[in-house]
Amino acid sequence: MSFKYERLDKDKAMLLVVDHQEGLFQLGRDQGPTSMKSSILAHATLGKIFNLPTILTSSTETGPNGPLPQEIFELHPNAPLIKRQGEVNAWDNPEFRAAVKATGRTQVILAGLVTDVCTTFLALSLREAGYEVFANRDASGTFDEKTASDANDRMRAAGVQILSMFAVACELMRDWRNTPGQKEMLPFFDTYLPEYGMLIRAHDNAVKTGAISSLGRS
Amino acid sequence: MSFKYERLDKDKAMLLVVDHQEGLFQLGRDQGPTSMKSSILAHATLGKIFNLPTILTSSTETGPNGPLPQEIFELHPNAPLIKRQGEVNAWDNPEFRAAVKATGRTQVILAGLVTDVCTTFLALSLREAGYEVFANRDASGTFDEKTASDANDRMRAAGVQILSMFAVACELMRDWRNTPGQKEMLPFFDTYLPEYGMLIRAHDNAVKTGAISSLGRS
Amino acid sequence: MSFKYERLDKDKAMLLVVDHQEGLFQLGRDQGPTSMKSSILAHATLGKIFNLPTILTSSTETGPNGPLPQEIFELHPNAPLIKRQGEVNAWDNPEFRAAVKATGRTQVILAGLVTDVCTTFLALSLREAGYEVFANRDASGTFDEKTASDANDRMRAAGVQILSMFAVACELMRDWRNTPGQKEMLPFFDTYLPEYGMLIRAHDNAVKTGAISSLGRS
Amino acid sequence: MSFKYERLDKDKAMLLVVDHQEGLFQLGRDQGPTSMKSSILAHATLGKIFNLPTILTSSTETGPNGPLPQEIFELHPNAPLIKRQGEVNAWDNPEFRAAVKATGRTQVILAGLVTDVCTTFLALSLREAGYEVFANRDASGTFDEKTASDANDRMRAAGVQILSMFAVACELMRDWRNTPGQKEMLPFFDTYLPEYGMLIRAHDNAVKTGAISSLGRS
Amino acid sequence: MSFKYERLDKDKAMLLVVDHQEGLFQLGRDQGPTSMKSSILAHATLGKIFNLPTILTSSTETGPNGPLPQEIFELHPNAPLIKRQGEVNAWDNPEFRAAVKATGRTQVILAGLVTDVCTTFLALSLREAGYEVFANRDASGTFDEKTASDANDRMRAAGVQILSMFAVACELMRDWRNTPGQKEMLPFFDTYLPEYGMLIRAHDNAVKTGAISSLGRS
Amino acid sequence: MSFKYERLDKDKAMLLVVDHQEGLFQLGRDQGPTSMKSSILAHATLGKIFNLPTILTSSTETGPNGPLPQEIFELHPNAPLIKRQGEVNAWDNPEFRAAVKATGRTQVILAGLVTDVCTTFLALSLREAGYEVFANRDASGTFDEKTASDANDRMRAAGVQILSMFAVACELMRDWRNTPGQKEMLPFFDTYLPEYGMLIRAHDNAVKTGAISSLGRS
Amino acid sequence: MSFKYERLDKDKAMLLVVDHQEGLFQLGRDQGPTSMKSSILAHATLGKIFNLPTILTSSTETGPNGPLPQEIFELHPNAPLIKRQGEVNAWDNPEFRAAVKATGRTQVILAGLVTDVCTTFLALSLREAGYEVFANRDASGTFDEKTASDANDRMRAAGVQILSMFAVACELMRDWRNTPGQKEMLPFFDTYLPEYGMLIRAHDNAVKTGAISSLGRS
Amino acid sequence: MSFKYERLDKDKAMLLVVDHQEGLFQLGRDQGPTSMKSSILAHATLGKIFNLPTILTSSTETGPNGPLPQEIFELHPNAPLIKRQGEVNAWDNPEFRAAVKATGRTQVILAGLVTDVCTTFLALSLREAGYEVFANRDASGTFDEKTASDANDRMRAAGVQILSMFAVACELMRDWRNTPGQKEMLPFFDTYLPEYGMLIRAHDNAVKTGAISSLGRS
Repeated sequence: MSFKYERLDKDKAMLLVVDHQEGLFQLGRDQGPTSMKSSILAHATLGKIFNLPTILTSSTETGPNGPLPQEIFELHPNAPLIKRQGEVNAWDNPEFRAAVKATGRTQVILAGLVTDVCTTFLALSLREAGYEVFANRDASGTFDEKTASDANDRMRAAGVQILSMFAVACELMRDWRNTPGQKEMLPFFDTYLPEYGMLIRAHDNAVKTGAISSLGRS
Repeated sequence: MSFKYERLDKDKAMLLVVDHQEGLFQLGRDQGPTSMKSSILAHATLGKIFNLPTILTSSTETGPNGPLPQEIFELHPNAPLIKRQGEVNAWDNPEFRAAVKATGRTQVILAGLVTDVCTTFLALSLREAGYEVFANRDASGTFDEKTASDANDRMRAAGVQILSMFAVACELMRDWRNTPGQKEMLPFFDTYLPEYGMLIRAHDNAVKTGAISSLGRS
Repeated sequence: MSFKYERLDKDKAMLLVVDHQEGLFQLGRDQGPTSMKSSILAHATLGKIFNLPTILTSSTETGPNGPLPQEIFELHPNAPLIKRQGEVNAWDNPEFRAAVKATGRTQVILAGLVTDVCTTFLALSLREAGYEVFANRDASGTFDEKTASDANDRMRAAGVQILSMFAVACELMRDWRNTPGQKEMLPFFDTYLPEYGMLIRAHDNAVKTGAISSLGRS
Repeated sequence: MSFKYERLDKDKAMLLVVDHQEGLFQLGRDQGPTSMKSSILAHATLGKIFNLPTILTSSTETGPNGPLPQEIFELHPNAPLIKRQGEVNAWDNPEFRAAVKATGRTQVILAGLVTDVCTTFLALSLREAGYEVFANRDASGTFDEKTASDANDRMRAAGVQILSMFAVACELMRDWRNTPGQKEMLPFFDTYLPEYGMLIRAHDNAVKTGAISSLGRS
Repeated sequence: MSFKYERLDKDKAMLLVVDHQEGLFQLGRDQGPTSMKSSILAHATLGKIFNLPTILTSSTETGPNGPLPQEIFELHPNAPLIKRQGEVNAWDNPEFRAAVKATGRTQVILAGLVTDVCTTFLALSLREAGYEVFANRDASGTFDEKTASDANDRMRAAGVQILSMFAVACELMRDWRNTPGQKEMLPFFDTYLPEYGMLIRAHDNAVKTGAISSLGRS
Repeated sequence: MSFKYERLDKDKAMLLVVDHQEGLFQLGRDQGPTSMKSSILAHATLGKIFNLPTILTSSTETGPNGPLPQEIFELHPNAPLIKRQGEVNAWDNPEFRAAVKATGRTQVILAGLVTDVCTTFLALSLREAGYEVFANRDASGTFDEKTASDANDRMRAAGVQILSMFAVACELMRDWRNTPGQKEMLPFFDTYLPEYGMLIRAHDNAVKTGAISSLGRS
Repeated sequence: MSFKYERLDKDKAMLLVVDHQEGLFQLGRDQGPTSMKSSILAHATLGKIFNLPTILTSSTETGPNGPLPQEIFELHPNAPLIKRQGEVNAWDNPEFRAAVKATGRTQVILAGLVTDVCTTFLALSLREAGYEVFANRDASGTFDEKTASDANDRMRAAGVQILSMFAVACELMRDWRNTPGQKEMLPFFDTYLPEYGMLIRAHDNAVKTGAISSLGRS
Repeated sequence: MSFKYERLDKDKAMLLVVDHQEGLFQLGRDQGPTSMKSSILAHATLGKIFNLPTILTSSTETGPNGPLPQEIFELHPNAPLIKRQGEVNAWDNPEFRAAVKATGRTQVILAGLVTDVCTTFLALSLREAGYEVFANRDASGTFDEKTASDANDRMRAAGVQILSMFAVACELMRDWRNTPGQKEMLPFFDTYLPEYGMLIRAHDNAVKTGAISSLGRS
């Protein structure tokens, strides 16, 4: 079996923010809410750091689904926002399709609420339309872990690649010496991956003011 | 790899209720019983709301498996009920096969007790017979989570798509402005997806009588 | 160590519905939402079936917490509803204290959203005021299982008894031949404890139309 | 995608008992030991009930792995027992390969300790040799759930079907009116699937001596 | 704080089998059904092995709760069976109280279905009546783990000691050289604690026919 | 049993930040790291909002334990920081004891890394010294959930009350109309309890611009 | 409620190694085997580092329980080893009681296989005999987590303190500047608490050769 | 479907140690740290025992990621160590690619920190370059179990085989009579698979000095 590695490329990728709405937030229960919110903001932030064409969309936002959080607009003040009036699958909305095509990009990074509907339906349509599709699984949420797992399996069967946020970030960056690279990504990880952030902080502090312990090995 | 999105279409789909029997209910332990019962009724209700040809079947119902719950007959008073006298796989029953074929539909939504036997055997036979098959995983139940997961994997290997109840509902509806749409589906979700129902209720109440909090942001 | 069994008595008990509000519902994530809603309605229904003095209370309900669900008012159209304008602990509200005292009862069954705040604070105050307190744990909800467990431990340390809904119901009923007894409680369990309901249904069906299997033992 | 349902057929299938040894039993920790032992005996019993050609094998049984349990020999007193002196993969043992081929069967049902080594290695070799392979996942055990899951995925990638014990039994039986059928399988399920056994017992008892409850519905 | 160790004594203890009925079996979902059934039979067997006065009781057994399993009657053909016609708490039944008192024993080992009602209510009454109470937690079952845990906590607050089946057995035996001792208990553990049984089998086999491995240490 | 409710009072309470150090952060694995960091910052923030005397302490911070995060100093620029050079239990450090006594407060809210050592040892000493002690369990972390649970039980046995962060906050606030009250606490919850924050945001948005859905009930 | 902190004191404590036998090892399934073995060795090592009087005991070691691991004898070549020929509770063995009393110590640190029998029975007897008892929960093991939890609760009810290995170690050490202190304990933690060991190693390496990252904060 | 079993062959395989660095160790939280460290050392040891060409690599090791542990260098003093200065995917580093190619081997066994980035990116590139790739899942670690599972699925979709450490070891050894075989592997399992090690020890001890129990069966 021969294999072609479809690899994220910051010059080929766009980023989609799908229905990360303040009401729908309550339906994302396959991870804790603090982690869910952090993942949603990390997703939008990656679009900004890597300067990816970014498209926002929401579903019937004057109803209980609510609007997107203000933080996302602050990150992407000029991104198109497609307010769908009824289409569940964003690809069914011509304005959204046009916005995607207008990017000229062939790779799509997406995440949404809820995984099994908003993310999956769109991902399958994008695969049918010929895009390479990368789902940032940390930034999608749904009713429970089994629903998320089955939705991810449905996407995988269509050729969608399911990646962690860290994998998305690292595959876009590729080399810590690039731009964006260490300079941009360390503060990002300090905010959105605190186990790594605290490791970095403690390291820097050790270099600056630390004292050798008596362990006697490294 | 090219991909064709097999998508539920309310004009192509039929719905099968497979062995949701009152005795077999006790064997469905991969979700809590309150949730299991709710999912079974939601499954049958989707057939009614979307006016899908619906076929009921049961296995040796004078024995310990018991009959289907009365609620299902109330939802589908005129649906064919195929009482299998011995066949485990409903597809082995000629009357059942005839009923399925008589619908003229090419897509099948099914769920049953238990997942690894009643649902899976039938789903594999349906795939072999050329149907597009969609398993509503929430409305199937079995001995434990691992058994469900392995059964779903066996179905996936045959091209069956495993969907949550919410995904089945939304893929059938497609657009909140359709009929059935918001008018029919909001009460459905209020009953069968209470986290969404309570979100809707609180939203409507806020619009009608709510007061702005002092949070100062949206 | 001598022990006195504080046992629920339907002639001594009152029932409190504490902040089961439509907005706060989203914060109850230590059980699934279908189960959470069912437990909330079961709690209120026990007050009705056993004709217990029942008091409803809510917290700042024009804000995001929202109102109590309509179903509860339908069960208790004449129960006092104390709308607290700011007190977190209902016992801090004089109107609420007066309503409790007006019942003349010495035992309190309570549940609320969220367990660690609305339920626990009130339960501790009730214990300090000398009441025998029984928390229906199924009908309280909070952020996660650990929070619920620690809150229940805090109540236990104050002498609160933590009971399942089934234990509350059975300790009130005491004997299936009582009134309320089998006649009232079987339909209740059929609705709110479906594993028992389906057992009852299958049993009745077997008596009416069942055929002996070939197992050859009982 | 066209699909051919490879379905167990009692006239085409053989059954393999792979390294269910008394010492290795301690390594099967992905299910509880009571369940593990029950599943091992159920596996061997299916071979007897359906009169399947059955082959036993063990690995270096004078060492810590120990012998097969006596119960298996009592079920299959005349089955060949291939005592491997060193080969981890039973297919590497010529005597074992000869025994498998001598059955003239084309379908293999297998289970072993431990899943990721004894079961998987053999299953992959059997697939390479052209057999249809069905792994009874309940009767294989290993270090933890993740190891079992990854091993099952490795087998699935090779076309092995992973079935529960109940699915193996029902796919072999096909119809409760067959022989073996209800008469043989109800006692089997009473022993090895007690949730079903107790359902059957309670049903029969209800038919014989039960009284209608006052639920008033079925 | 001074402490008095209330320790099981086979000459002071009686054993109660509470509502281990074939219908109620379905409600015991905090452990797997194979383990649940094994634990129920182990409980009754301990009464036989240690020759403890044993009392059986059931609740409305012509209804859906069903009768006790035949295996228990085979173990205790002469034990009193108190068929309660309505009392949930067995202590409310005068015949049951008389049977308990007639044993002349001061320690009670009990288990039942379901933990939070049948076991707990009786245990609390027994504590109030002055008995030392030991709950065999493995042989009680209920709706889910949290319900079991809260019920056990309620019993602990009343001075009930919650023991595993293994602890009950070993505290009764005290010394492997006693009667009952190794001779009676090894076959018991072989049946009801298979991780220990297989350890014993493999050990005995190693002594008889085993060969030293090349590990070179013990 | 009479009970005295020891209730947090913002005029009697002090707050202790114990060893929330950047290196030790890696040892807090009983909750996810995003949640752990959020809880640590929420803990310190409560001291600021309620203007509680706040004391910081760290253990051998030039070694691998590292310093406290900068965010905590920004919240409490003037709080005493006791850098312990060796004492594991902060109470063994005279400077720390003096700082605690200097507050003149009788209630202590504390949290630390790790729960079973830094938090527990200090909490037990504080109880021995006569303080009312409240452990904010969300802001303590340790190796795994069982270690946390056992440590909390050890503290409970000494009369420590284990509270969630939300319970600490609400017991300090008591009434949404107080100062601090709704105005201060809603932004706090928006940051540190995002499931509540998103509920508030969606509510406010519904009041401002929302449209009634067609559900037809509230 | 006044509280007296019973605190481990290396000059008052003895350490007991109870039935950590190579056969019984298989019964300790409430933690992974790698962790179980590490905890057993850590327990014995603490006795050596703090020079605590240490007593070893085993139960019927020529049978399936097997001997203690050689590593323990290498740590404690001169410790008394009481080979019990039948007593389950070590306190029932006069030689063992004599060895405990001969230490002249009043505090006991113990751990054993299995928690609910070997550890608990002895701990309860020690409490009755007036000792302060500290159970190192990490180094005890049993059939499953619930059995361990219930056993720990039984011990807690008798005044036993349940501590993690890290809490035992730190309460014995008290101050990193003591002897034993940092010099002895860092290598111990490097071996038995690798998350701390790797933190120490990385810190020391950063001090020696690390370069500041560009995070720009600590 | 025909299937070709790609099977590990010690004469075709190389082993890669990818970023098992002392700082990154903290990010591996999908298994406990004791198990994680043991798995990392077992991975490197397999390379030594089977004399596989072994390549070490690290990522920006003067930063917070830190160096590889000393134990790995002691096992492989002469292995090439490629210190990547920025490339996340080791395959992007020409020196690393050259080292891999210089082995002349066609099979790769790899593991790394973290699974979804360091292991997966490299594994996908290796597949694209035509290697047969075997991931030792036990020796890779990442943020949580779901991240590991999705990363493993991504690798599986590329034809990577995911194996347990035990499966890697046994597929390399193939026959206990080979060299390396029982003599080399039993001490390895004694160290890195203690459930097997203790089984071996107890077996050998039984052969040498054990006494038959009275079970009377094997």
